[in-house]
Amino acid sequence: MLPDTHISLAHGNGGRQMRELIDDLFVRHLGNPGLDANADATPIAPPDQELMVTTDGFTVDPLEFPGGDIGSLAVNGTVNDLAVSGADPHYLTLSCFIEEGFELARLRRLIQSMAAAARTAGVDVVAGDTKVVRRGEGGGVYLSTTGIGTRRRGLVLGIGRIQPGDRILLSGPVGDHGTAVLLARGEFGLRGELRSDCAAVTPICRAVREIDGLRFMRDPTRGGLATVAHEMMRCTGLSIRLREPHIPIRLEVQAVCEMLGYNPLYLACEGRVVAVVAPDAADAALAAMRQAGADAVEIGSVEEAGDMVVLETELGGERLLEELESDPLPRIC
Amino acid sequence: MLPDTHISLAHGNGGRQMRELIDDLFVRHLGNPGLDANADATPIAPPDQELMVTTDGFTVDPLEFPGGDIGSLAVNGTVNDLAVSGADPHYLTLSCFIEEGFELARLRRLIQSMAAAARTAGVDVVAGDTKVVRRGEGGGVYLSTTGIGTRRRGLVLGIGRIQPGDRILLSGPVGDHGTAVLLARGEFGLRGELRSDCAAVTPICRAVREIDGLRFMRDPTRGGLATVAHEMMRCTGLSIRLREPHIPIRLEVQAVCEMLGYNPLYLACEGRVVAVVAPDAADAALAAMRQAGADAVEIGSVEEAGDMVVLETELGGERLLEELESDPLPRIC
Repeated sequence: MLPDTHISLAHGNGGRQMRELIDDLFVRHLGNPGLDANADATPIAPPDQELMVTTDGFTVDPLEFPGGDIGSLAVNGTVNDLAVSGADPHYLTLSCFIEEGFELARLRRLIQSMAAAARTAGVDVVAGDTKVVRRGEGGGVYLSTTGIGTRRRGLVLGIGRIQPGDRILLSGPVGDHGTAVLLARGEFGLRGELRSDCAAVTPICRAVREIDGLRFMRDPTRGGLATVAHEMMRCTGLSIRLREPHIPIRLEVQAVCEMLGYNPLYLACEGRVVAVVAPDAADAALAAMRQAGADAVEIGSVEEAGDMVVLETELGGERLLEELESDPLPRIC
Repeated sequence: MLPDTHISLAHGNGGRQMRELIDDLFVRHLGNPGLDANADATPIAPPDQELMVTTDGFTVDPLEFPGGDIGSLAVNGTVNDLAVSGADPHYLTLSCFIEEGFELARLRRLIQSMAAAARTAGVDVVAGDTKVVRRGEGGGVYLSTTGIGTRRRGLVLGIGRIQPGDRILLSGPVGDHGTAVLLARGEFGLRGELRSDCAAVTPICRAVREIDGLRFMRDPTRGGLATVAHEMMRCTGLSIRLREPHIPIRLEVQAVCEMLGYNPLYLACEGRVVAVVAPDAADAALAAMRQAGADAVEIGSVEEAGDMVVLETELGGERLLEELESDPLPRIC
């Protein structure tokens, strides 16, 4: 066990204390046969498939929240970027920025949570790096993870494959993560039972990627569902029509958003998938997603050129859903 | 061109301003056929070799210093971890933590420098992520890069292969980077012409890895040459003998260290290689390194068990070189 209770600059200097921190904390919890803490780079042996890579930074505040923490969030967020690309996640690298004075017991909790999330998602941490920054020069802990996975050759998915008439599916309620983190900040005197949806979406993606007619998948994180809709509109030149009454939003999320003036369609999810499928594949895709445990629903469709994101409201009206401008919730992921 | 001059939280929210920042800055400068800024994960096609991966975080302060900046440092530092592992670097991913209020013109300089370093090192940036943290919650810019390379199957290098009698080679003077960054901080009223040695060591490593009898390579970054010696000692149980008069140290580095009480053997290099070779391979390895442009010298040897790092001094004496304890220079890389 480390004799120290808080992070000091010496934990980042390349010497004894840094070595002990790495051995006792990172290697102990994240260790696996593929991780050699004494090597500068690590061999990764890919199956005979297409290799995929993604990278992500995490700055969530608070670092721990109901349903997750920055450790599980980093693993799941990175795994999910691979999963929605149609890949099977295999390896993670971890780069850790720790603020001087950070409590070691807390760092241990975060790393343990990361290890548990990695086991659940079936990925190995194969390389890592830690840097310690001076007190006041960091937000406690920032993590950066890179994910490496493999995708079956011939599986072609992409935002450019979306066509008019396609259906838009969603794997579960939106806004849980954003709202849970917001409540965990305790700034508004609100409390609740809400938990982040932070989880690996690999099972859902594996199920739906077998469906002929799948065009594109994305996880609606920062900027939420509305931002995914805008990305689809912008990259295709088509219009996106979302049916508000069909979009699942938990009552608690709705209530918090109404009180604080947020729109849940712009809030981050960390365990949801948006899937776009050909019209005749919608039923099969929904069934596959549900089989994988998702509360999947059809929430909209793609229309001929028009360059708009249209929201059909409860009462049959329509309004434009604007692109996100100011940041409603910094450090949400 | 971006209309803004400084980073705001909205540059990190997933919406319009973040998209414009990414398109106008990151994609413009780091773009290549392998980079799809609209994809969650990117396919990387490896040659028929062993894949290698490494990751690194960068927090250097100041962000710009003579001979480099955090952008070129991140590229070279990551490329070098692959190179000393015997790999050819191919791909980089970039995760960027930016503090609210950071000047955009400065960010542009850093990204341009990164792009230039990537071109020189022959690597493509294939995935990226940006996060903006609130004013006061970051040190300006932190970067995390993951490098992916390939290594010829059958090339076996590793710290565990070091044997008694092996010779220790060094590719050039030590302490330049640490001292240049120290001077750039301007805290001590010292000025100088010294430049960081920040550079890709790929050419040197490519040359020396063809030599039969090469056991191990490492770049002496954080903690310097002394820390590499301690790692070799600890992982092998052998003793490491360094000959102080043979270790090249620039006069300016020596002078600054004497004034401020630092030992240059503990200061970071960012463009040097330590290579350990079998005794009968030392001459060929030195010649190969010199052919690749390095001022390579033999600086020591490996001895039977003893678990010590011994420094032979100018006057024929000996002293133990201790493992680094407190951090002489935080945020040096």
